[in-house]
Amino acid sequence: MSSNQLDKKSEAWSALFSEPMSDLVKRYTSSVFFDKRMWRADIAGSLAHAQMLAAQKIIGADDLAAIQKGMAQITQEIESGTFEWKLDLEDVHLNIEARLTQLVGDAGKRLHTGRSRNDQVATDVRLWLREEIDTLAPLLRQMQSALLDVAAQNVETILPGFTHMQVAQPVSFAHHMLAYVEMFARDEERLADVRRRVNRLPLGAAALAGTSYPLDREMVARTLGFDGVCQNSLDAVSDRDFAIEFASFASITMMHVSRLAEEIVLWMSQNFGFINLADRYCTGSSIMPQKRNPDVAELARGKSGRVVGHLMGLLTLMKGQPLTYNKDNQEDKEPLFDTVDTVRDTLRIMAEMAGGIVVKKEAMEAAALKGYATATDLADYLVKKGLPFRDAHEVVAHAVKSAIQLGVDLSELPLESLKAFNASIEQDVFDVLTLRGSLNARNVLGGTAPVQVLKQIERHRARLA
Amino acid sequence: MSSNQLDKKSEAWSALFSEPMSDLVKRYTSSVFFDKRMWRADIAGSLAHAQMLAAQKIIGADDLAAIQKGMAQITQEIESGTFEWKLDLEDVHLNIEARLTQLVGDAGKRLHTGRSRNDQVATDVRLWLREEIDTLAPLLRQMQSALLDVAAQNVETILPGFTHMQVAQPVSFAHHMLAYVEMFARDEERLADVRRRVNRLPLGAAALAGTSYPLDREMVARTLGFDGVCQNSLDAVSDRDFAIEFASFASITMMHVSRLAEEIVLWMSQNFGFINLADRYCTGSSIMPQKRNPDVAELARGKSGRVVGHLMGLLTLMKGQPLTYNKDNQEDKEPLFDTVDTVRDTLRIMAEMAGGIVVKKEAMEAAALKGYATATDLADYLVKKGLPFRDAHEVVAHAVKSAIQLGVDLSELPLESLKAFNASIEQDVFDVLTLRGSLNARNVLGGTAPVQVLKQIERHRARLA
Amino acid sequence: MSSNQLDKKSEAWSALFSEPMSDLVKRYTSSVFFDKRMWRADIAGSLAHAQMLAAQKIIGADDLAAIQKGMAQITQEIESGTFEWKLDLEDVHLNIEARLTQLVGDAGKRLHTGRSRNDQVATDVRLWLREEIDTLAPLLRQMQSALLDVAAQNVETILPGFTHMQVAQPVSFAHHMLAYVEMFARDEERLADVRRRVNRLPLGAAALAGTSYPLDREMVARTLGFDGVCQNSLDAVSDRDFAIEFASFASITMMHVSRLAEEIVLWMSQNFGFINLADRYCTGSSIMPQKRNPDVAELARGKSGRVVGHLMGLLTLMKGQPLTYNKDNQEDKEPLFDTVDTVRDTLRIMAEMAGGIVVKKEAMEAAALKGYATATDLADYLVKKGLPFRDAHEVVAHAVKSAIQLGVDLSELPLESLKAFNASIEQDVFDVLTLRGSLNARNVLGGTAPVQVLKQIERHRARLA
Amino acid sequence: MSSNQLDKKSEAWSALFSEPMSDLVKRYTSSVFFDKRMWRADIAGSLAHAQMLAAQKIIGADDLAAIQKGMAQITQEIESGTFEWKLDLEDVHLNIEARLTQLVGDAGKRLHTGRSRNDQVATDVRLWLREEIDTLAPLLRQMQSALLDVAAQNVETILPGFTHMQVAQPVSFAHHMLAYVEMFARDEERLADVRRRVNRLPLGAAALAGTSYPLDREMVARTLGFDGVCQNSLDAVSDRDFAIEFASFASITMMHVSRLAEEIVLWMSQNFGFINLADRYCTGSSIMPQKRNPDVAELARGKSGRVVGHLMGLLTLMKGQPLTYNKDNQEDKEPLFDTVDTVRDTLRIMAEMAGGIVVKKEAMEAAALKGYATATDLADYLVKKGLPFRDAHEVVAHAVKSAIQLGVDLSELPLESLKAFNASIEQDVFDVLTLRGSLNARNVLGGTAPVQVLKQIERHRARLA
Repeated sequence: MSSNQLDKKSEAWSALFSEPMSDLVKRYTSSVFFDKRMWRADIAGSLAHAQMLAAQKIIGADDLAAIQKGMAQITQEIESGTFEWKLDLEDVHLNIEARLTQLVGDAGKRLHTGRSRNDQVATDVRLWLREEIDTLAPLLRQMQSALLDVAAQNVETILPGFTHMQVAQPVSFAHHMLAYVEMFARDEERLADVRRRVNRLPLGAAALAGTSYPLDREMVARTLGFDGVCQNSLDAVSDRDFAIEFASFASITMMHVSRLAEEIVLWMSQNFGFINLADRYCTGSSIMPQKRNPDVAELARGKSGRVVGHLMGLLTLMKGQPLTYNKDNQEDKEPLFDTVDTVRDTLRIMAEMAGGIVVKKEAMEAAALKGYATATDLADYLVKKGLPFRDAHEVVAHAVKSAIQLGVDLSELPLESLKAFNASIEQDVFDVLTLRGSLNARNVLGGTAPVQVLKQIERHRARLA
Repeated sequence: MSSNQLDKKSEAWSALFSEPMSDLVKRYTSSVFFDKRMWRADIAGSLAHAQMLAAQKIIGADDLAAIQKGMAQITQEIESGTFEWKLDLEDVHLNIEARLTQLVGDAGKRLHTGRSRNDQVATDVRLWLREEIDTLAPLLRQMQSALLDVAAQNVETILPGFTHMQVAQPVSFAHHMLAYVEMFARDEERLADVRRRVNRLPLGAAALAGTSYPLDREMVARTLGFDGVCQNSLDAVSDRDFAIEFASFASITMMHVSRLAEEIVLWMSQNFGFINLADRYCTGSSIMPQKRNPDVAELARGKSGRVVGHLMGLLTLMKGQPLTYNKDNQEDKEPLFDTVDTVRDTLRIMAEMAGGIVVKKEAMEAAALKGYATATDLADYLVKKGLPFRDAHEVVAHAVKSAIQLGVDLSELPLESLKAFNASIEQDVFDVLTLRGSLNARNVLGGTAPVQVLKQIERHRARLA
Repeated sequence: MSSNQLDKKSEAWSALFSEPMSDLVKRYTSSVFFDKRMWRADIAGSLAHAQMLAAQKIIGADDLAAIQKGMAQITQEIESGTFEWKLDLEDVHLNIEARLTQLVGDAGKRLHTGRSRNDQVATDVRLWLREEIDTLAPLLRQMQSALLDVAAQNVETILPGFTHMQVAQPVSFAHHMLAYVEMFARDEERLADVRRRVNRLPLGAAALAGTSYPLDREMVARTLGFDGVCQNSLDAVSDRDFAIEFASFASITMMHVSRLAEEIVLWMSQNFGFINLADRYCTGSSIMPQKRNPDVAELARGKSGRVVGHLMGLLTLMKGQPLTYNKDNQEDKEPLFDTVDTVRDTLRIMAEMAGGIVVKKEAMEAAALKGYATATDLADYLVKKGLPFRDAHEVVAHAVKSAIQLGVDLSELPLESLKAFNASIEQDVFDVLTLRGSLNARNVLGGTAPVQVLKQIERHRARLA
Repeated sequence: MSSNQLDKKSEAWSALFSEPMSDLVKRYTSSVFFDKRMWRADIAGSLAHAQMLAAQKIIGADDLAAIQKGMAQITQEIESGTFEWKLDLEDVHLNIEARLTQLVGDAGKRLHTGRSRNDQVATDVRLWLREEIDTLAPLLRQMQSALLDVAAQNVETILPGFTHMQVAQPVSFAHHMLAYVEMFARDEERLADVRRRVNRLPLGAAALAGTSYPLDREMVARTLGFDGVCQNSLDAVSDRDFAIEFASFASITMMHVSRLAEEIVLWMSQNFGFINLADRYCTGSSIMPQKRNPDVAELARGKSGRVVGHLMGLLTLMKGQPLTYNKDNQEDKEPLFDTVDTVRDTLRIMAEMAGGIVVKKEAMEAAALKGYATATDLADYLVKKGLPFRDAHEVVAHAVKSAIQLGVDLSELPLESLKAFNASIEQDVFDVLTLRGSLNARNVLGGTAPVQVLKQIERHRARLA
């Protein structure tokens, strides 16, 4: 077995270098303490590469066997925590390769044939991200299911629907929950689209130009479950648009979370009092003994900031970079890792917490009685009596003004008073002025009438099954 | 014909209001001077709505005819510049509706039946954006075609491939161009994905809860060419994730543009001198008479900032908004409009300018001779002679160090000197040490060998045909 | 009078160029349609430059007189709207210089001596921005004054202070308003700091390296009211950190606005009902006749997005730009202009609207009675009786739990019940359990006790006087 | 000693809570594993608070002594690594307080009198940040000094000054370095401005409203070295504008770094070859044996992205938050910590690396000879002969065009040829057409003439002394 260049890396990068890296430089440029997280992807990629090298007779069958044996041991060492990660070896790739060579000698030194760290790291990041996407997708579905469960129990629960935070029209609380199901369903679609673009194999691009070895890149792609092969080596090692697209998916998802979280915080506030949360989702105050705070929702709302920040960081990172690989790209990993962690933890806890929402139906319904929520129904009633909508709208504005002055709801005005605004108003007007009458009337595809809401619940259940 | 409430809007919003809006408020909240841009979408949406209302017997056939006639006149007025846009009427929707009612009376007042500005504006934005997407997609293809044309003429042109802006390995200039074709092809994929999510119909959601009229939303969707109907009314009027997703597509595309632009600027610089640009794409200096500046590329690079900024603005806008429609959402339009304009103009001019690139082949090839670009080829040569890759890498590092000290290229070292680094080196080494030898050797799928590059050009040509 | 090169600019940039710019390029690269906004600054800068050139004998007194006369006419033409802005002349600078030369001949051609558009535009932007800063500073003070007026009328008005949107402790509404006064006062400080860095003169840097004419830059600085001179020509023409710093000031200010706006929207919501807004600050709904929406506050909240977006855009723009001036920098203007406009309009309208806030004291006080807002007072009472704070906190938690179960406030528990939680509780506990008792007790510097609040109002009044 | 509520926190938050937090919630909401970093600030703040409580007779002298003794032990435990940080105790504050109470009993429970975690954490963050600012300021000066050292050795070194990456005019390399000194000097100014706003004491605001204990907040401020006291309790606990302002300073600084880094990367590229970097600042390639990459500069450039991302994250975080403290604010810390670390490490390594720059004067000067860098000098020469500048500019454009066609520099054209462009040209023209003639001519304040550059070096030296 020949000597191992990587063992001397702390002395000099290679024979070309006359002095070691400065310690400050080592610490500044090394990535091993965060990129070691991708070790499984790194080993999987190396094994697939080695298998192909052997199949193509670029290395021998004995080399492959040695590499497989060495990697099995390294896997075991990392899992058991005995693997020694070295700063001098910069990153997860060189750490594993150096250990492999220690374990199996020349076979280890042959592994890097036809490969560069440039295509290796691009492959690792994509493999790692694909695995994480495959964890996130079920969480997005779990989130939807949790909201569906709340919806199923609240089809007839009436909530004041707001526009501009002003009471607008009564809606079913289930309908409100379903709005978020739609959002997270679109996020799931987006995630699937990202996955397609993530799941392409860079390996074989080597440093930037491809390689002179007769690699079978499509075999490697099949082994690793990639949908296809990056068709241009320069592009393969240098672009990170897939990471940005993922961060964009994540930012939109967190934006949706922030809206739901905002509503949970408001609904928990004494001035709404629409819901309660189980104690296990609340925290107290170090000074105010009465406090039960919806910390989880607040934190989820706040964490939208960090994810949006990562998206911006990645876009800034890539702006104006000439081809091909530049060291800047090392900065793709930490924001990506933190984005994945944040979205995963947030979806998990928000889905769990949704199960702990205690709906206070009476408070919701009482609130819907404020704010003349059925004024549009009166306008629609007048239209059905023959008025053009714009005129009906104006008649009702007069009626509301009068009711406000009297301090009563529209439904509390006597028939004569209502008739004074428009002679066509009859006794049956009181049916449309009730919350439930208003709710049931919105029986249009996508509307809040319970019969429509039930259809949607069924549709989503079927989709998620 | 009854009186028209909208004509009195400058006096008070409706009968409910006791005073007009303050002038400052009017100017601050009105959107007509930017959203009038969507007038075609607004009229198309109104016509589809009216057709459906008539089909559903909600309005009469005569109402529909009157609305169609009125809208035809309004179209003609807007196109001829005689339409009077009024600040008092806030936005494109009320301006057109008010004019319609002036023209056709009660039929105009019936148009808004079962509709709100909340679902109307969401529909307009989506219709407008879909049209713009259908303009951008061909531009993305045009961009790819322009780059393919440059590639087709430069398959054998040798460029120094850079990593870390250090000469790495020789690559075909065509191969370099194809890297960008790949990027813009992915952008095209992303745009198609965005389109699917944009192309769903919000109309029928009314203010937020649906409506009590028996609308046929799917008929409206068919008339307007939407792929489907938004299934939840609250979500339909309040989310703008489609706009954010579009801005994300645009940011990634502009990021790609910024990289190409950076390279064009560098290649034009005297220190590279790789290309020239036709005079019509350059500007001069007010003080320095010798200057010919690649302003277009610089500006394109800079404009990535504005598009990324709009993405950030939209995410900030939506963060933490409770359901459903809030006035904040009016702020979705200007960034979206400017994003579309910027991407469209930039793609158009970059594609045109690509045709004006004059490649200076000799300068490119001369530059590739610097920097020991074939060192990897020597390492690969040694591997084929039996050395493990890591050892070969180290041998070549010694050889390069020696060549640097002598001030010569590897190919200029005599055979004996090379043999001193490794005895297995023979005369045939000089074949692999030439630029063209190196280029041809990278004959792997996605590699830079001309034979591979030609295959890719064919594949892209077929795809874009 | 010799012929005027700028008149032929539509044919070719200069004699060096063999063809005119393509039309697309002209439109893409011209800035005149937005940078003409800086025309006053451009003329002021030119006049100061010409004065100095004459004082230094670089041009003649007659040249100066001609330039002054020409500029007077141009000023009049622009003000009256008769000045013809030409796309071919790219920007405000060449448009004005070309017209000047038309008007006064060779003197006009001498104006650009020792100057470049690079230092000219940097000077214009700084001059323009300084003027705008001097408009914004009083608006920030006006904003504070408006809030102070509301505060002065509400020193004794009790609002539930929230943490986590949960009722925490009673606070004076005046105290709440003063929190925003503090924020805007810091914004004012920041603006003054930005101004110092904006107000330095780039002129004299010429294209990038200085000039061979004996300019007196300090004279120009004095004429234009600059605090000093940029000390490095390369830096002077290429950095835009002052614009970014301004955008950062603006983003922080708009963040503060977004918080106030969020609260106004919440307080206007029926579930709070803490305030009302005069009709002139509200808008209605096209479908719901009862609606009065706080559009201004919502829009102000939303506009924080656009300003943050501009900050992001500017940072992306400057990232990684090599020295010195690059055309990318032209992209600094539109975001800067829009940032200024947005902050100015928003401050103006928010200050005006603050005067239209109708405080509903009873509703605020009633809300403060929910949520056991005086629980901390009970803990503090127990500490004064000798309990360590942590133990007192725990005792009160028990008391609150019991009160919740009984559905009463702490102050409604009978003395014996309270004594059961801790024997030291006496009749005087009921004084600390009232809202007003709690309020008055927080008599510490910066606390909410009316006596403290009054002191702060006085301090701010004196500061703003 | 009474029992310790905090010891039972894993069972329930307080007596008010009927179940413990879910494990997922604990992990999601706890901050101890990142905020423990502020432990020194937390202890310093507690000691100052306790001292004041004793001075005000709110706690006894024995309590103070016990607290001081306990804190001394805790300090020692943390420094030695034996302190056990507990997830159940959420954050650094409760961890330290709980341990203190274990150690000293009731005195520990008295520490939190008149204080809340809300004002405590705001104080800790400000104290911590102030310390970090006081580390960063000298690093900014060190950076400037390092650049000054390079400048001092290169006053006469000629570099081609670029605009649009096109050769513009010759400049002194020292002058180029001084441009960055100016930028970092402004960053230093900005940092000092931030420090003033950071250095105000929130403690005493308690939960949000102040406290009923007679605290002496100004005493605490003096003890801790704060410049003053936050004058409004609501503002004190809820705003984080100081953190955003710091992130803005950091983003601008990193933008400046990114520009310098970009230039270092370009200058190291074989096509420029303007500088070399010592081996200890370079890394090699895993595949290409000849590579020496300027990783540090690339990474520094890339890290601008992460810092800009944090700024955006913080702005998003704070957008639209109602007063006062919300749990969202916990998200202020990680971006702030990472921003500080990134700026500190980057400034340190860039300053160190600047000392390792080897300037290749010949290559720089050779490059300056390309691109007709003295064309402006010829125009200025003609102006001195009486031509208006615009005409002179046009004459030189003709001369440059001709020289390009002949493939020679302006200084290589024979006098007769030059005279053909303008008859006033004489033999002395050749003095102004040399690089050194051009350099020396720019003898204006802030210009590149060596005499000016030397003055600036002296000024900066004096400033930094």
